[in-house]
Amino acid sequence: MNIKEYSLEELNKLSDDIRNKIIQSVAKNGGHLSSTLGATELIIGMHYVFDKEKDPFIFDVSHQAYAHKMLSDRWDRFDRLRQIDGISGYTRPNESKYDYFSAGHSSTSISIAVGAAKAIKLKKENRVPVVMIGDGSITAGMAYEALNELGYRKYPVVIILNDNEMSIGKPTGAISKYLTKMKAGKFYQGMKEKFKGFLDNLPQDFKYAAKKFEEMFAINGIFFEEMGLEYIGPIDGNNLEEVIETLKIAKSLNKPVIVHAKTIKGKGYEQAEGYFEHWHGVGPFDIETGKPIKKSSLNATKVFSNYLLKKAAENEKIVGVTAAMPSGTGMKELLDKYPERFWDVAIAEQHAVTSMAALAKEGFRPFVAIYSTFLQRGFDQIIHDVCIDKYPVIFAIDRAGIVGQDGETHQGVFDIGYLKIIPNITIFAPRCFKTLEYAIDFAIDYTQTATAFRYPRGAFYEVEVEAKPFELGKAEILKDSNNIMLIGYGNGVGRAWQVSKELEKRGIEVGVLDLRFIKPLDIELLKSLKADKWFILSDNNKIGGVAESLEAFCNENNLNKKIISFEFEDKFIPHGETKDIEKMLEVDINSLANKIEWMVNNGY
Amino acid sequence: MNIKEYSLEELNKLSDDIRNKIIQSVAKNGGHLSSTLGATELIIGMHYVFDKEKDPFIFDVSHQAYAHKMLSDRWDRFDRLRQIDGISGYTRPNESKYDYFSAGHSSTSISIAVGAAKAIKLKKENRVPVVMIGDGSITAGMAYEALNELGYRKYPVVIILNDNEMSIGKPTGAISKYLTKMKAGKFYQGMKEKFKGFLDNLPQDFKYAAKKFEEMFAINGIFFEEMGLEYIGPIDGNNLEEVIETLKIAKSLNKPVIVHAKTIKGKGYEQAEGYFEHWHGVGPFDIETGKPIKKSSLNATKVFSNYLLKKAAENEKIVGVTAAMPSGTGMKELLDKYPERFWDVAIAEQHAVTSMAALAKEGFRPFVAIYSTFLQRGFDQIIHDVCIDKYPVIFAIDRAGIVGQDGETHQGVFDIGYLKIIPNITIFAPRCFKTLEYAIDFAIDYTQTATAFRYPRGAFYEVEVEAKPFELGKAEILKDSNNIMLIGYGNGVGRAWQVSKELEKRGIEVGVLDLRFIKPLDIELLKSLKADKWFILSDNNKIGGVAESLEAFCNENNLNKKIISFEFEDKFIPHGETKDIEKMLEVDINSLANKIEWMVNNGY
Repeated sequence: MNIKEYSLEELNKLSDDIRNKIIQSVAKNGGHLSSTLGATELIIGMHYVFDKEKDPFIFDVSHQAYAHKMLSDRWDRFDRLRQIDGISGYTRPNESKYDYFSAGHSSTSISIAVGAAKAIKLKKENRVPVVMIGDGSITAGMAYEALNELGYRKYPVVIILNDNEMSIGKPTGAISKYLTKMKAGKFYQGMKEKFKGFLDNLPQDFKYAAKKFEEMFAINGIFFEEMGLEYIGPIDGNNLEEVIETLKIAKSLNKPVIVHAKTIKGKGYEQAEGYFEHWHGVGPFDIETGKPIKKSSLNATKVFSNYLLKKAAENEKIVGVTAAMPSGTGMKELLDKYPERFWDVAIAEQHAVTSMAALAKEGFRPFVAIYSTFLQRGFDQIIHDVCIDKYPVIFAIDRAGIVGQDGETHQGVFDIGYLKIIPNITIFAPRCFKTLEYAIDFAIDYTQTATAFRYPRGAFYEVEVEAKPFELGKAEILKDSNNIMLIGYGNGVGRAWQVSKELEKRGIEVGVLDLRFIKPLDIELLKSLKADKWFILSDNNKIGGVAESLEAFCNENNLNKKIISFEFEDKFIPHGETKDIEKMLEVDINSLANKIEWMVNNGY
Repeated sequence: MNIKEYSLEELNKLSDDIRNKIIQSVAKNGGHLSSTLGATELIIGMHYVFDKEKDPFIFDVSHQAYAHKMLSDRWDRFDRLRQIDGISGYTRPNESKYDYFSAGHSSTSISIAVGAAKAIKLKKENRVPVVMIGDGSITAGMAYEALNELGYRKYPVVIILNDNEMSIGKPTGAISKYLTKMKAGKFYQGMKEKFKGFLDNLPQDFKYAAKKFEEMFAINGIFFEEMGLEYIGPIDGNNLEEVIETLKIAKSLNKPVIVHAKTIKGKGYEQAEGYFEHWHGVGPFDIETGKPIKKSSLNATKVFSNYLLKKAAENEKIVGVTAAMPSGTGMKELLDKYPERFWDVAIAEQHAVTSMAALAKEGFRPFVAIYSTFLQRGFDQIIHDVCIDKYPVIFAIDRAGIVGQDGETHQGVFDIGYLKIIPNITIFAPRCFKTLEYAIDFAIDYTQTATAFRYPRGAFYEVEVEAKPFELGKAEILKDSNNIMLIGYGNGVGRAWQVSKELEKRGIEVGVLDLRFIKPLDIELLKSLKADKWFILSDNNKIGGVAESLEAFCNENNLNKKIISFEFEDKFIPHGETKDIEKMLEVDINSLANKIEWMVNNGY
């Protein structure tokens, strides 16, 4: 379809069709719903005013880009959203040439646009990068760094600030408050010039002029204008006519422009309109009732949340932080119950980490609850602000391992590698819901160094062995063996346990060890193991993983062991349901049992 | 001394004494000079108005805090600045209880203050965090993330913005431009209220009022006020009376306040006043003439700079970026000669990395020149924006290994560990000046993945073997052996070579191998090695280092080798001259030769 030739009526019809298709696909496969529904007119406007064949279309986080996928080349494939070999929930250049960049972490879009603008200038091409960024994403430092350069160098870039007054949850911080102050209504760039003349010709009514002056300069957009960007807005981002008219002006300015568009999150699906976090990302649901199709079962996040709530009631030194993911990390209940001790600091992982270091210094027990993949943003802060001075900050790392349908940008497979290289940090992992509670206990009590523990999205593999509290650097033998030991870490313990049961059925006996601590290792126990074949199971990449630590340990201690790693290969892991991805990676129980059986039978 | 009882005259005398002591110590030991000289009155003001026994004194980057060190408890020890076991060039809580936090990387101070303020509020204490941050440091995203929360929650924190119109080099970006617009002069908080009344009572002279209105709200500080902070300034930060008076007001407000103070970098040392980068950090110099005592010899940074300049002249696709370190990274000459292709993006490593990914996508060959330690700030961006889509960005990693006198916060000992865990990146290292040029050649030509190569501060250890160009994944045997192979990587090759020469003198023959690539490894060559003892030399920490990769390789390939790592232990490495630190770590040539000799004699 060439929507550039559509009438306004046809465009409005198109937006209805897109919304219906989004609702149908997400109801079937799960996905991001409310932000992408709200952005439909803005994306139609982008496709109407800009040229997808040459202008870089850059979506921040990109979970709101479903309409873009349909309007470029994925209308027919869209019902396979987030399935293995189906459409990604995010923009992915390897899926379509119309996706300029991969995104999944927030606040990268303006940097990408600045880079694109530099290239366009050097190549002397006639292309304009157009960015869509949410009011949540603009709170991250990275967006500010990019604005700082953009406002200085003045490249022509159009930034659509999609302001639905929500981040994933309710947004927080001065910038959000600032944006909220601005009232929606028609506002055109020309008006500003007009008003200046008006002001000059109206010397009598000073108060009115001053009020207008303030409204224009202090309320609407001066923050961005002080950073060197043109500002237009706020406009009604769900009104196609207004969107198109404004984007045309913005594109023509040949300068960096912020188009501030107010939209309604969830627009077009009654059940979702006006709701905050619940409808941001959802599993399959019934369109009629809005009710989820699968009953939600107990998961690690919920266990973490419940238990921390209990501990926080007992110990007022417990504090904590989330970076704009209150529900996702389970911190919501804590923010609600103890608003003076738990904070949502917006999308600001760097600040989250470092500010909690100060609380640790002051004698508090701060929990930094950030997903494995997003904690990458706080890497330098963990080294520089937490570990150099040994502040006992507690890192509760959710979504460790395969995360499923969010894919490449969200897999939690690097945290062991990037954390264990840092001195002065204690790293361990629970294997089940009960040991997750014990992990919290241990972290609260242990104040010699920072601590970090990881747990998977959803549930753990089951281990039918009674849970025990953590002791510093102590591993646990769940089942001994003189020959083959499956050494598990975190969710890898359950994986090992289930594999051992499967192998038992096939007549092969193996031992299972729960490593518990990757730093420090249980030197004594490892040295005492009689088994000389160690098979390592842990939900992270091989490089920087658990097996490497054990190989280094064996080499240093002159232990001659055959170590085989079943951790993940050195690749980015694509999207798809976790069970499908596990099969693809051959780390599901059956594949693992097959491989080990083969090794046993072939004298490995 | 209790300076709170000093007269203004005595305080002014004190500032002269402090400056003299700074100049003497830095002339002797080297160190940071111009920013700390400029900040003298501000720091005296902090100590006069705040209480160092209870108020957190937080210095951003903290190289400007020398006066604070003298005014707390290090007056007498200050001449041992930056020497091993002497005073650190940065604030360090393990050196003095008056140093609230370690710092060395920029833009962490406001986050620390927010954390401290939260703790103070919870503890119901009467303490006020006071921050000193430079106009360069406020450009980093992390500062913005912290301001966003601070302006929202309104904790009482006094932020002294030490604006010397310079970062390390000339500052860049919209924020710097914005600050520069503001003109120095007396300005008190009370004036604002006064002016509002004045405005109300003066309806006739509209133009004058509007001008004043604009001056106050639009020019001075509205950027910060829109972020929810009070703003006072700009004041003359080298005028003690004005500084003290303003800080008293700021402290009394019980709100977050920015005190914008203009200072002169290098103030009090004629040769340094008004210069940009040269006097920021210096080696020992002659006070009379300002000339360096040691002649500067050729170093890796200079070789990188010269050769890239040559390549950039030949190939217009070569572009590059520095994050506010033009001279330190050798990019200055490129910025000067090709201002349209090389950019200083301010202290903004995140943005630097991601924006260059877009240039790589558009067919350019972007060089990201960032120190090993500062690249930690761009870690997530390397994974998420560069490597997922395999953009061939080139990371030129200076200051890899021991950096000497800057100490813990600056050591470049983690980059191998945090980079090799990422898929789709090729990692290698030159061993000498000539191979550094070859590294640049290889990186320009190789476009299958991102590339990263590291090189040390200053010079390499010497290797008297002719340099050869890099071939993907190919190592090089410099001297073979059937028994012991010293396997070097980067500057570790020269270390290995010199050790082999020392051992030869002692009658012990060992081979030397230049690994060249840590990712991918030279599988064939490594498999073919006859030596069964591999001793690993590389300037990085053991955990996540080169030996671990080789151990994993041997295990996977059923090679039975004894691998011993001479990489660094799992600790933060303190400051001191590099040769002293090497001895302390026992990685100097003699210590290494001794250890290997002992091993050989004891049948290892």
